[in-house]
Order: sequence, then C-alpha cells, then structure tokens
Amino acid sequence: MRTIDWDHDRDCVVMVDQTQLPATYTTYHAETVAQLIESIRTLRVRGAPALGAAGAYGVALAARRHEADEFAVYADAVAADAEAIANARPTAVNLSREAERVLEELENSASIDAARERTLRLAHSIADADVERNRQIGDHGAALLSDGDTVMTHCNAGALATVDWGTALGIVYSAHEADKRVDVVANETRPLNQGARITTVELLERDVETTLIPDNASGLWLQRGDVDAVVVGADRIVLEGGEQFGDQGVVFNKIGTYKHAVLADRHDVPFVVAAPHATIDTERTADEVEIEERDPSELREIYGTQNAPADVPVGNPAFDPTPMELVDYLVTETGVYEPPLDRAAFVEAAEMAA
Amino acid sequence: MRTIDWDHDRDCVVMVDQTQLPATYTTYHAETVAQLIESIRTLRVRGAPALGAAGAYGVALAARRHEADEFAVYADAVAADAEAIANARPTAVNLSREAERVLEELENSASIDAARERTLRLAHSIADADVERNRQIGDHGAALLSDGDTVMTHCNAGALATVDWGTALGIVYSAHEADKRVDVVANETRPLNQGARITTVELLERDVETTLIPDNASGLWLQRGDVDAVVVGADRIVLEGGEQFGDQGVVFNKIGTYKHAVLADRHDVPFVVAAPHATIDTERTADEVEIEERDPSELREIYGTQNAPADVPVGNPAFDPTPMELVDYLVTETGVYEPPLDRAAFVEAAEMAA
Repeated sequence: MRTIDWDHDRDCVVMVDQTQLPATYTTYHAETVAQLIESIRTLRVRGAPALGAAGAYGVALAARRHEADEFAVYADAVAADAEAIANARPTAVNLSREAERVLEELENSASIDAARERTLRLAHSIADADVERNRQIGDHGAALLSDGDTVMTHCNAGALATVDWGTALGIVYSAHEADKRVDVVANETRPLNQGARITTVELLERDVETTLIPDNASGLWLQRGDVDAVVVGADRIVLEGGEQFGDQGVVFNKIGTYKHAVLADRHDVPFVVAAPHATIDTERTADEVEIEERDPSELREIYGTQNAPADVPVGNPAFDPTPMELVDYLVTETGVYEPPLDRAAFVEAAEMAA
Repeated sequence: MRTIDWDHDRDCVVMVDQTQLPATYTTYHAETVAQLIESIRTLRVRGAPALGAAGAYGVALAARRHEADEFAVYADAVAADAEAIANARPTAVNLSREAERVLEELENSASIDAARERTLRLAHSIADADVERNRQIGDHGAALLSDGDTVMTHCNAGALATVDWGTALGIVYSAHEADKRVDVVANETRPLNQGARITTVELLERDVETTLIPDNASGLWLQRGDVDAVVVGADRIVLEGGEQFGDQGVVFNKIGTYKHAVLADRHDVPFVVAAPHATIDTERTADEVEIEERDPSELREIYGTQNAPADVPVGNPAFDPTPMELVDYLVTETGVYEPPLDRAAFVEAAEMAA
C-alpha cells in the first residue's frame, strides 16, 4: 500500500502508522481532521513528499466532513481546518503548500458537491504526481546498477518518506522491477535511527535482502569491497558552494552523508544522490544554508533511557554538506547528471517549473 | 580515584561502579571474592588493563579471606579462587595473566602472613605499573598537542579502561597537567555507546571541556576545521598488513576508527594512536586477525527497546583495521613513532620484554 492514501470504502485518509515501526507494520485511519492533525504531529506520517499528500488529503477530508446551507459558510469552515492542518508541523513546507493548493481548488468550486469531488481529485493527483516522479527517479537510477549489486544507503529516502516508491530506495525497487537483484546495506543513522527503524522495515516488506549495520561500520563494508554503490537522498541541493566549497554544488543531507561520500571516494565506489528537482535550490549558496541543530536529548537519552551525563554539552546537527566533487551521479525525475553540474540548465529548469 | 584500587580501611577491593554510568559516578566495594567475580561479570570493571588489576587484587583479596592451619590447604583454597577469578571473563587475557602472577607469588611465600603481604604488594605494583605506563604514553603524546587544541576521540581509551590515566585520554590529561588547555569531542561510539556513557563521564569528572556528538557528525567537525587531532587507542596492532594492506602495519580498534582516520587524512588533521607495547602483536599479520562479530541484538534493541525489525539481518563487527598510511603518530610508553614503523625494532623490543 501507499504510505498515505484515501480509503474509498470508509471515505477517509489511511496511512502506514510509522509510530508503530519497527515493531508492527499497521495502518491508521484518520476519519476526522483532528485525527489527521494528530497523526502529523505524532509522526505517524513524516517525510516532505508524504506530508504534502497529507496536507492535500487533509483538506479533501475537511471538505467531506463539513456541511452548510451556504457555500461561503462551508468554505470558511474548511479554510479554518486547512490552516490547522498547515500548522500541524510549521516548518514542513510541502504540508502547507499542498493544503493551500487544495483549498484554492475548493474555493473555485461552484457548489459543495463539486468542491468535495474536486478537492479529492486534486489530492489524488498530487499523490500520483509524487509517485510518478519517484518512479522516474527510480528508473533513471536503476540504469546505473547491475544484477547482483549491493547498495549502501543512509537514513530513509524510501517509500515511507514519500507517497510511494521513494527516491534513493526507489532506485532499488526499480532495479528489482527490471529483474536486477540488488541487495541493500542500511546504516542505522544515529541519532534518530531511521535506517534501523524505517528503511529496514520497508525493504523487508518488499523482499529486498537487507543488512543493518551501525554507521561506524560503513567504512569497513567499503574497505572490504562489499558495496557497489552508495545511494542517498537529499534534503536540499545548492548549485554554488560559496566560500567553503567554491563554484561546485553542494548536497545537504542527513548527518553522516559526508562521511559515506568520502569513504566511497576513497574506495572508488560510485556515490549517487537521488532527489526530485524540487530539492534543488537555485538561489542560495552553501554559505546561506543553515544547518538545523537538534535537541541534545536525542543523544543524552535513547528511547527514554539515559545514554550520557544529563548535563554533557552535545553537538547534534541534523545535516551535513557534501560537495559535488564527491558525487558521481545526481539522479532526478528528468535523468542522470554527472557533476560538475551545468548550473544554468538547472536554473532554467527551475524557472520553467515555477 | 583509580578505576580499581585497594581500600586499606576496609581491607577490600574498591572500584568505580561502571554499571551505574552515566547516571551516577559511584564506588563499589568488593569485600568477598564472590563479589569481585560478580563485578567482573557484570562489567562494573572493564577494559583490559583494569581487568589485569582486578585479577591481581582479586587473588590478594582471596589471600586475605582464607585461613587454614596448613599452608598447603590455604594455598589450595586461594588457587581455587584464583581460577574462578581468571574464568570470570574467559577471553580477557590480562585478567587470567595477572591473577596467575599473583597466585605464583603466594605459592612462593613462606607463610600465610607473608603470602598476604606479598600478594597485596604485587597487586599494587601491577596496578602502579599500568598507571606509570599510561602516564608515559600521556606525556609523550601531550608533546604533540598545543594549548587550545581540540582533540576528537572514539570509544573509551581512558582512565576507566585502565587503572588510571588511560592511553588516548591520558594524552589529554598529561596536556592539562602541562598547562595546555585541550578540549575533547567525544564520538558516541555505537553500538555500545562507550563514548557517551563512559568517556564523557571521566572527562567531565576531570573538568575537561567535552562535547558529545553522534558518530555521524565527526566528518562535519573535521570539515569545519574544529578538530586539531584525532586520538584513539588500539585493541591490537600488527606490523605486517598481509594480503590486503601489504607491508605496512595495521591498527585494529573499535569499529568506526577507520572512518575517522580516512576523514582526518582528507582534512590533514593528525591521526594519533596511543597504546602500550603490549598491544603490538609482532607475530601475526593483519590477515590473521579475526574481527569479532557481536550479537545482532546490540542493533536490534537499544537499552531494551526495539530499534529494528526483530528478524532483520545485522552486521555488527567489533573492530576495523586502519592501515598505518593513515596513522601519523603511534604513541607508546617508550616514545612517539611516525609510520612507516621500523618492524625490526618493535620485534626486538617485544623479545626483550618477553
């Protein structure tokens, strides 16, 4: 099933309940807008593209739950819900953007019945577009892999971060679909353990041979020659490195990505970044990207148990920058690019998309 | 206080209770041989040199607890205890070696009173020799550091793995004693979190400015230029690399060490290995060193909470090999050596020590 979808029988939103991972792979039905908002807040659904679909389906859900004699009263009620949905996680851009798009569709509808139909149709098309994009990334990337390869990945750039298929893991799924057996080595991905908790779950769910290793062991796997490609996603890609990285682009991704890139480089293993064009920031330089510093408790405690002195100073950055000189292939929905990237072409593509 | 010592008032063994870390820094008194054995088994005391002292003090404790009319009966009773102590952790070579040394001292004594005095004296001298060796390592290594430097370390090669002072962290303590302020960045060191649980505790206890980071962040720290040296211990050093590493030596240390060495190399930060000569295996090649594979549960669960699917295949090697081409300085109790190492000199030193 998709990470998030519409249940036509129960006329509500259905999602994989990621708070139950890795113990159980189960679904949760959000029958009300309040339940949907609570699901976003508690991370039952997470990952930028999946949150975009959550925002879209959420407004469609609101459109079906409200009733009024006058359209304006009805539209106001849905708009209030849409705002609450958009604010469920304030920094999730996709969430608010897609919620607003669907709300706009509602406001342009001629009747309540039409609004209900049009909002759900748009939500579906937003979800479908994500899957289509990921499948394109997957198919382009799969061409880089051979039957029997082993891919190392970091964090979760998989189906469970998107509506379906995923970006980095989409490449693995597309390879399988093309009858290439590709195994995966998943890094645990401290401090939030997405590799252990999420990536392994979706890989096993799809019958991909998977080995979980601590982040510390990735160097040994590369040194031993047990990895044919390192494939990761990206949180943001900039095309100018600024003071630190010069005129090359830079990939910002989950902390630890840089180390894997350096190790892959040392052992001549291709380092592949898979991400949609929407991830490419054509305006900022690397100097202008702020790296989120997360709460020290993520290291001082693990699953509620004390892991370090309660008052120890902690460094806990969420991302690190990997310069394009370490990236062998950038895979997007439009194809495979080998750095150095043609900055002008990406800027032009972004302008056309806008 | 020392990690393990003799309490003269209570006439028993006293140790830092490492099972209480990081929550509380407290001591445990082993008044009986049974309590000492239980302390070794439950890892109240751990680390090869500290276990050597535990074995030595343990036999001294047995020598004080037993009583008999005949020396032979007395000696047999202590010998039975010594065997039990030596077997408390079967693969800990230091533990059985030092227990046997002290038992031999007892067997060469003329009376029970003499045995009690001589065994305790020898245990003290074994503990003192460890501290003296570590202080020499510390002093030699501290000469490599400057006032204001920041050192990154991995795992715990500190006072709490030895009787006192430590090897890698001994360099930091010696620098402080020489009025050089040196701060430390401690890697968490998954999967057993020794950096978080143990290293930070002893550094804060000694007023060293400490920052705990996830292993994944060490690359970012080096990339940013926030580290002046990476200093680690060693579990075993071989002088011949064998098929994989050729004629250079290889350092086997906690999993993740290799990654830090590669990153330090990329950023021209000195990579320092601190270890006593006893760690240098002059006979084996790197090919002949087996890397211990540890239990999958260390990744599938953290502190008893499920971290990954219960049946996910796991790779969990305890150590990785770092070739000497990545090591800038090897610091032992006899001085600082810059690889490539003079193999013949180390073999000769080992033969003289034997």
